[in-house]
Order: sequence, then structure tokens, then C-alpha cells
Amino acid sequence: MPSGAFPFRKVAILGTGLMGGSLAGALKGLPDPPKIVGTTLLPEDRKLAMERGWVDLFADTNGAAVSGVDLVVIAVPPGAVPQVWGEIAGNLLPEAVVTDLSSVKGALYEAYRTKFHTLLPLYTSSHPMAGSERTGISSARATLFSDRTVFLTPFGGEEDSLLPLDHLWKALGAKTFRVSPSDHDGIVAHISHLPHVLSYCLLTLAEQVRRENRYPGFDWKTQKGGSFSDILRIARSSPQLWADILFQNRRAILEAMDSFDHQMELLRETLENGGSENLSRLLSEWTAPLSETLPP
Amino acid sequence: MPSGAFPFRKVAILGTGLMGGSLAGALKGLPDPPKIVGTTLLPEDRKLAMERGWVDLFADTNGAAVSGVDLVVIAVPPGAVPQVWGEIAGNLLPEAVVTDLSSVKGALYEAYRTKFHTLLPLYTSSHPMAGSERTGISSARATLFSDRTVFLTPFGGEEDSLLPLDHLWKALGAKTFRVSPSDHDGIVAHISHLPHVLSYCLLTLAEQVRRENRYPGFDWKTQKGGSFSDILRIARSSPQLWADILFQNRRAILEAMDSFDHQMELLRETLENGGSENLSRLLSEWTAPLSETLPP
Repeated sequence: MPSGAFPFRKVAILGTGLMGGSLAGALKGLPDPPKIVGTTLLPEDRKLAMERGWVDLFADTNGAAVSGVDLVVIAVPPGAVPQVWGEIAGNLLPEAVVTDLSSVKGALYEAYRTKFHTLLPLYTSSHPMAGSERTGISSARATLFSDRTVFLTPFGGEEDSLLPLDHLWKALGAKTFRVSPSDHDGIVAHISHLPHVLSYCLLTLAEQVRRENRYPGFDWKTQKGGSFSDILRIARSSPQLWADILFQNRRAILEAMDSFDHQMELLRETLENGGSENLSRLLSEWTAPLSETLPP
Repeated sequence: MPSGAFPFRKVAILGTGLMGGSLAGALKGLPDPPKIVGTTLLPEDRKLAMERGWVDLFADTNGAAVSGVDLVVIAVPPGAVPQVWGEIAGNLLPEAVVTDLSSVKGALYEAYRTKFHTLLPLYTSSHPMAGSERTGISSARATLFSDRTVFLTPFGGEEDSLLPLDHLWKALGAKTFRVSPSDHDGIVAHISHLPHVLSYCLLTLAEQVRRENRYPGFDWKTQKGGSFSDILRIARSSPQLWADILFQNRRAILEAMDSFDHQMELLRETLENGGSENLSRLLSEWTAPLSETLPP
């Protein structure tokens, strides 16, 4: 928990779905919680957010929601963020800090730099490494960000936007890591986007083998809790959202896929030509970083 | 739960580690549990198994353990199974059923067919799709097999070995699937071995990027609960055991890796040359089988 007073008294959360809703819930759990104004396209999310006491008031438009607030959090899919910028730019207080929760930064930063730099001067982009394969405020949790990493990428007005957001995320129990747009996209290509790619590819390979009925009578669906279902679960997130994410970060992802192929080639070579001893040595060497420098 | 009396009164479990120990615990949870004789190389596992009441008696050798029992369960790493066959073959009752819990069947079946067919006439190999990245009886759970798939692969004396084992696994809450050695190995190459390969390759790629210090200051280790750590966790199992498994099933695994590469190529092509719409269509199509024909 950082020292000093919590830097925001009135917060607009544009999009109170899983991420925005969880943020609202987390903020309302603070000792002296800010007032929260929300927007959502879903009447049932609006109802649930009010019932839980996570949002004080819903506005009909994003432009109306940001009026008079000292923090705006844009919690919509990454591809839709610039449109929201256009909707809110005219209604902000000069001291208002703006952030988003997007999982890709490069394309967003380009749009900011070329078109929105002067309209949204106090801007640091956030990316909490937390979420769920489910969507909507019904799956939101006030503890979602606790003990998670939040990437902070200053776009503009660094001093006045980075520090208060750093304070906010730490107050919610997260660790923060300040990073440039391109480093952010390279990191998440490895720790999030490539894992999704692997899940999608395993999934469609299994379905193909199933459809060919190569193993008659075998029930692929009821496999539980093993490595197969653990990996497949990753592909459960919204395909539209993930198409948006993968497409926006395609350059870094393609590079990570190439590097991954290289590791597959090394393993293949050992499987084909090495003995069991060589394979054992390779896997021991590869898995040594677990718990030391890599999770878990 | 199958009908009829439980078919075994005295069971030898050779190797009371995670799998063998869990089986002992599960058997002792039955309404009229069999007597259980165990073997282990680890004094602490012996102690814990006795304290829990999961094993009635430990024998000093595998040969001594099987004397007078009506079921032998060989719960050692797959590469060590034929050696155990040699140790027990002379001491079995003629009506004793023998099984193992190995995760690869082809190589084992070859060894059985050529050398042990007449010595172990009542043999059906089992493979419960359950486990943990941890080892030892301290991580064993009596509920480990509940609701899981158990592959049953008759090697010899089909009628008299398959049915009682089918009864046993169903009594412990598992679903059984009877399968040939080669189909077994093809299925597990897709649902278990390839997922491990993917985890190993992601892990070593991440460690390489970390070592190069490509993203200075970024803490790879503390990433929690996301897709990255979910996949990496799979690589946590013993590298020696998994080198043995992968090596024994290398032909089926290499084939699955080739098919996986083909899916990666399709996704790469769409990322490189398709638009966001094409990618969205592809991911929607690929993820449609989830919950329908594939888990979760």
C-alpha cells in the first residue's frame, strides 16, 4: 500500500464489464472510496453494478460520464479505445488523468501520438495482467488485481499521470511495472498472446483428429483437469476480443511464434536422434528455471 | 458404481508414490476394502502410508509383495515396468490379475508380447488420466481418480483381466475406455504429451528472453494465474519421468507435433496476410467445439 492520500475522488469507468466492473468493486473496497460513474451497453450489468454498490451512477454516454471526474478509466476492447477518446476529449477537466486497460499498446500509442496527444495530455495506459475467460460484471471480482502485475505505459504528461495511477494500482494490491509501448507488446506476446496461440492450435488440432474419428468411441469432451483441458481453457475467452488483441500485436506475436518454433525444432531433433538420456538432460535443463526465475 | 462384488480381496501396489498411493487410499475408501501390500524405496512414504491406513503391510521386495494376492498394480515409471515383471513373474498365483499405470503402451506391449506373455497371462494395462505435477504419497489423494478417464489396454487373458479391472476403476468413480496400445498412444500424444511439449518449449523460450535481458527490470517469476503460468505449471512434473514418457511415445508425439505445426502455419498465415475480420472468423470457428465436443 503506497503512502499519501488516494489521488482520485471521482472516477469514470467507461465499460463496466469484467475488468471495469472488477476495478469498480476494488475501488469501493478502499477505506475512503471514490465516487464512481459508469457506462455500459448492457442493462443487466448496470443493474448488478448498482445492486452491489460498485457504481454510484450510470451516465448515458461516455462524454457525459467524464464530466467533472479526476480519473477516466476506459475499459473497452483495445480496438474501440480511440473511438472513446474522441467521445470524451471535449468534456474533460484539465487536470483529469486518463487511462485504459488495453492489452496491446503499440497501435494505441501511435493513434495517441498522431491524433490525441494535445486533447488528452495526462495519459498513462494501464494493463493489469488479470482477467478471466468469462465476461461481464457478473464474473467480476473486487480482488481481481490483488497480487497481479499491472503494466504502466506513459503516453503523455508522464509525471502527472504515471504517479497517481501507480498509487491507484498499488492501493488495490497490484505490483506495477513501467514499460514502453514496444517492450510491453513484446512481453505480453510471450506471457499471454503466444499461450493463447498455442491453446487455439491445440484445440483445433484435437477437433480435427476427433472429426476424423481416428480413435472411435473416445470421448474427447470429458477429459478433466489434466494438461489438455488446462491449455484448452485458455482458448475460452471471447474469440472476437482475442482476434482484436492478436491482430493488433501481430508483429510481436509472429516473432514469438518463430522463436517458439525454434524450441520445438530443438526438442524434435532430440526426440528423433537423441537417446532417452539426452532427452532427460534437455528437459532437466529446460525446467530448472521453474520456481527460480519463472513461475510457478 | 458397477454391480457385483468387488473382484479383489488382496492387492499388491508396487510403488506407493503419487499414483500408487492414491490408488491405495481410494481402495481403502471402498465399503469393503481389500487388504493392501505395498512396496516403496522411500522410508517416509512407507511411514505415511501406514499412518493413513492406506497400506496394511510393506514388503521388502516386489517379489515378496505379490505372494498370495489376487491383483498386482505396478505403479513405477513406464521404463521400469518390465524389470518389475521379471521380479514378480515367479511368485504369482495362477489367477492373479496384473496391471500397471503406465502412460505409454506401445513399447510396453512389445516387451510383454515377446517376453512375458506366458509368465503374466492375465494382464490388462491401465492408464488413469489423473495425476499431479507433484510426486510421492504426501501429494496422493484418495479421490484422484474420481470422474477421470482410465484407459484399459488388454495385453493378455482379456476376459479374465479386463472385466475385473473395469469393475475396480468404476468402483473408484472413474470412466473406463478400452483401447489398443497404438490407439492409446495416439490419443495421449494429443491430450497429454503434446501439451507437455508445448509447455516445455514455452518455458525455455521465456527463460531465453529473460536471460537476454530483453525487457530490463521485468520480473518473469511473479506472473500469476494467467495463461503463462497455467501452461508453465504443466512442465513442473519430474523431467526424468517425462523424458521417459516422451521418449517411449516419440513416434506418435512427433506426428502430433507435425500436425500442430500445420495449425500454427494456418494461424500465422492469417495473422500475416488476413485482416482482423478473417482472424476473428478463424478463431470463432476454431473455438466453437469448446464445451460441445471438447472440454471445458
